[in-house]
Amino acid sequence: MEKLRATSSLRRSLKSILNRQLSSVSEIRYLNGKRSCQPTFNLIRDHKNLGEANSIRYRCFSSVSTVVQRNPSFSTLNPDDISYFKQLLGEKSVIQDEDRLETVNTDWMHKYKGSSKLLLQPRTTEEVAQILKYCNSRRLAVVPQGGNTGLVGGSVPVFDEVIVNLGSMNNIISFDKVSGILVCEAGCILENLISFLDNQGFIMPLDLGAKGSCQIGGNVSTNAGGLRLVRYGSLHGNVLGLEAVLANGDVLDMLGTLRKDNTGYDLKHLFIGSEGSLGIVTKVSILTPPKLSSENIAFLACRDYSSCQKLLMEAKRKLGEVLSAFEFLDIQAMDLVLNHLDGVRNPLPATMHNFYVLIETTGSDESYDREKLEAFLLSSMEGGLISDGVIAQDINQASSFWRIREGVPEALMKAGAVYKYDLSLPVEKLYDLVNDMRTRLGDLARVIGYGHLGDGNLHLNVSAAQYDDKILEQIEPYVYEWTSKHRGSISAEHGLGLMKANKIYYSKSPETVKTMGSIKKLLDPNGILNPYKVLPHSLNS
Amino acid sequence: MEKLRATSSLRRSLKSILNRQLSSVSEIRYLNGKRSCQPTFNLIRDHKNLGEANSIRYRCFSSVSTVVQRNPSFSTLNPDDISYFKQLLGEKSVIQDEDRLETVNTDWMHKYKGSSKLLLQPRTTEEVAQILKYCNSRRLAVVPQGGNTGLVGGSVPVFDEVIVNLGSMNNIISFDKVSGILVCEAGCILENLISFLDNQGFIMPLDLGAKGSCQIGGNVSTNAGGLRLVRYGSLHGNVLGLEAVLANGDVLDMLGTLRKDNTGYDLKHLFIGSEGSLGIVTKVSILTPPKLSSENIAFLACRDYSSCQKLLMEAKRKLGEVLSAFEFLDIQAMDLVLNHLDGVRNPLPATMHNFYVLIETTGSDESYDREKLEAFLLSSMEGGLISDGVIAQDINQASSFWRIREGVPEALMKAGAVYKYDLSLPVEKLYDLVNDMRTRLGDLARVIGYGHLGDGNLHLNVSAAQYDDKILEQIEPYVYEWTSKHRGSISAEHGLGLMKANKIYYSKSPETVKTMGSIKKLLDPNGILNPYKVLPHSLNS
Repeated sequence: MEKLRATSSLRRSLKSILNRQLSSVSEIRYLNGKRSCQPTFNLIRDHKNLGEANSIRYRCFSSVSTVVQRNPSFSTLNPDDISYFKQLLGEKSVIQDEDRLETVNTDWMHKYKGSSKLLLQPRTTEEVAQILKYCNSRRLAVVPQGGNTGLVGGSVPVFDEVIVNLGSMNNIISFDKVSGILVCEAGCILENLISFLDNQGFIMPLDLGAKGSCQIGGNVSTNAGGLRLVRYGSLHGNVLGLEAVLANGDVLDMLGTLRKDNTGYDLKHLFIGSEGSLGIVTKVSILTPPKLSSENIAFLACRDYSSCQKLLMEAKRKLGEVLSAFEFLDIQAMDLVLNHLDGVRNPLPATMHNFYVLIETTGSDESYDREKLEAFLLSSMEGGLISDGVIAQDINQASSFWRIREGVPEALMKAGAVYKYDLSLPVEKLYDLVNDMRTRLGDLARVIGYGHLGDGNLHLNVSAAQYDDKILEQIEPYVYEWTSKHRGSISAEHGLGLMKANKIYYSKSPETVKTMGSIKKLLDPNGILNPYKVLPHSLNS
Repeated sequence: MEKLRATSSLRRSLKSILNRQLSSVSEIRYLNGKRSCQPTFNLIRDHKNLGEANSIRYRCFSSVSTVVQRNPSFSTLNPDDISYFKQLLGEKSVIQDEDRLETVNTDWMHKYKGSSKLLLQPRTTEEVAQILKYCNSRRLAVVPQGGNTGLVGGSVPVFDEVIVNLGSMNNIISFDKVSGILVCEAGCILENLISFLDNQGFIMPLDLGAKGSCQIGGNVSTNAGGLRLVRYGSLHGNVLGLEAVLANGDVLDMLGTLRKDNTGYDLKHLFIGSEGSLGIVTKVSILTPPKLSSENIAFLACRDYSSCQKLLMEAKRKLGEVLSAFEFLDIQAMDLVLNHLDGVRNPLPATMHNFYVLIETTGSDESYDREKLEAFLLSSMEGGLISDGVIAQDINQASSFWRIREGVPEALMKAGAVYKYDLSLPVEKLYDLVNDMRTRLGDLARVIGYGHLGDGNLHLNVSAAQYDDKILEQIEPYVYEWTSKHRGSISAEHGLGLMKANKIYYSKSPETVKTMGSIKKLLDPNGILNPYKVLPHSLNS
């Protein structure tokens, strides 16, 4: 009965879409996707001043509390330092105002807070180089900062590190329309680059919810993943060149604009995803794909996880070259979104389904792409993989489908306390962890699973009325051990930051971590760049 | 007149293809693409023994001769070493036979020849680790070797380095049909992997002429490019994990099988393209795309380079997601192929054209893809970008088109002496170099341009009756200076090897090269891994 109705609903959608064009869907989504809609309730700060100026206890909502000691080899700022920076950068780029410092000391989720007394805003690579050279000689620790949209405490100070914000370096340097290669400064906001490229007929190969605030230098430094990775791959594939400043002020010009360049070690990859701990990225060269004219979005329901997984396999094969997103959320995630976000409605309202899948296709031929998607959906429905589904009929509907998927983090924050995990797992095992965690937690908390299924990236969230160590004890270290046992990653796309620096061994072998430590020591012997983060604290002692 | 005839020829082709299926084209091409058809004439050896056992003069057909000194800190083999290796690997894997050593001491083009007295063939990572640990403690230099198909002298010894050939490590470890992730040992031959995947409904994301001999470990170590890069991107994007053995025998297990993993520095990228000088790659995890059912190949003629370039821009936009190759050759390359390769015929025989372009599309829908290609070609012809063209009507014809493009290197070898350059340049400047070089050389030699236009990769070749220093003086350093001036790369995909180790500064900044040197020193402090290659010799002194 359900299937009949569902099929009918899908067929209606398939039919009704025929006369509509979705070419501007992405623009709408960009506007809705801004991280301007911050949660308004207060979050508990998980870093408590212990009364000792030189140590901090952090719990990050998600970890047994740990005490971090301030590295005693670091100096503290003195008036001569301030004078030096003012002379170098000018008065306006040397900020000591408390209100402004409050903002840049605190992360977006209000989870981490540093106590930096100084924010520097360089405008050129040379200025960044002079800042680092000086800080290195004075043993002043530094936090490189972009849009400060990270989720693991990587972009704010832990203690009194000098904040070097790249936001004033926001020029587009060049764009080559033949090759689609964009060269720009690190402080360019992702959404501005998207808009710029849109006018040129191109798109950025990455897209994420924080696009309205995050900067390309931060994206590169954290190897941001996002919604388009399934189609265009990671930044290791798309970034063609970088300019980065090392801790001693040396500028590495690796700003190539070539798709192929096998002349020596490809050092830029060291800076992609090292979270500012090996150098500060100042310029980026990136390959951008042509903007294709046709975009279609379907919102589907599946009976069980096995169906989602089979649907993914079929989509990869049958939608092949036009598939550009394959996202999923479970019934609990859908329920949260419907209950906590204003104006969101269920596109498949007749009944709640166990799983929802959002499929996006992007291609160069409107009628063909639509036909292809329709044929795929009909065959999937006939094969029992889809219980219900709808294809967006216009831009607003497409945007509303994305709003559901992109709204899950916001809904979670509004629902109360949330323990967040960003995991990579083999697709066939991925949802077993959600089920296991649900069994484990019982009535203690709600377990929510959603994420980028096409990339094997699960966002596992545990939602409760308030933070409770009993809940935490049930989650950790179980979640990390489970992930490690299945050779997964404890950080798919968020990075390690401060939150998971000590958890690295769950995903990386001791020899590999030791080698990372050697490279850190080689490139930043005084350890001034983004200290206490990425690598385990034991490595620095 | 020509246009009318051409249009008619294209239309005939477009029509006649309608009933044919090209789904197996790639298999045929693989068989024809083997590097088994080696040239039979003798090449001049460019490394001459100068009468000093510890130095070698090399010229590489393409460079002012340079003397390399054997690093005096390296030991020479003694009977105890041989005993140790026999005990470790067994008699059969420790090879001292002169005939077999002759083969592995000499590169595929017979340009470089070492004088190693020992070939080792480990079967496990542990054996590789023990070999390197021993060699490092004894200061015995080592050349890692795969299929030995490289073109820059990277895979053979310069002096008496111990050759460690990975060919016996050729097991497929796992293949995940849900995610398309293949894990295998480094010695797997690329063509065997292609065949294995074909049975599973997948393809390798890289494809190159040497597929019948080259090994995946060598592909990764040289960051091989090839024919599919325009569609699937570089190995930095497709390789998900590696296992590598460092010079001291430490095994780095970075063998992840995840599309996303942001847990610390992504060290595997150091080993991709470092030509075995930082470690020996022993296992590879790689993302493989689904095999799509429809493949079409068109062979086209263009009046001038500007038309080729515009055609590329149009193809990227209009063929978008189905474009899988965009190759070009100039009239001189075509002429060579037609004159020197048996059984090759001109698909557009009426007249010779200045430029030829091969376009391949790969998609999931036979009729749609074909229609799309036909529409694109017709509009390009109407717009004057194409002078003539033909779409392959069957597998044999498709194979014969590829044979023309892939046959250029072989034809060049048969034509006499050849100076080869593998350059990356901005697409709009790329052919200016060919023209400039032609003006510069006048009647001295023929200049041939062909390559992967879709990636901005020019294979510039200078063909003459015999090698002549007068020709060389006209080519170098002009070609490197020209490339450097346009921010190109002096090695797009072949690597630096021995041939271009000292040329690195044409493409990389001094600070970057210095940092490469520091990393080499960190990971291989005794410099035993693939010495004299990749990095400039001045860095090692």
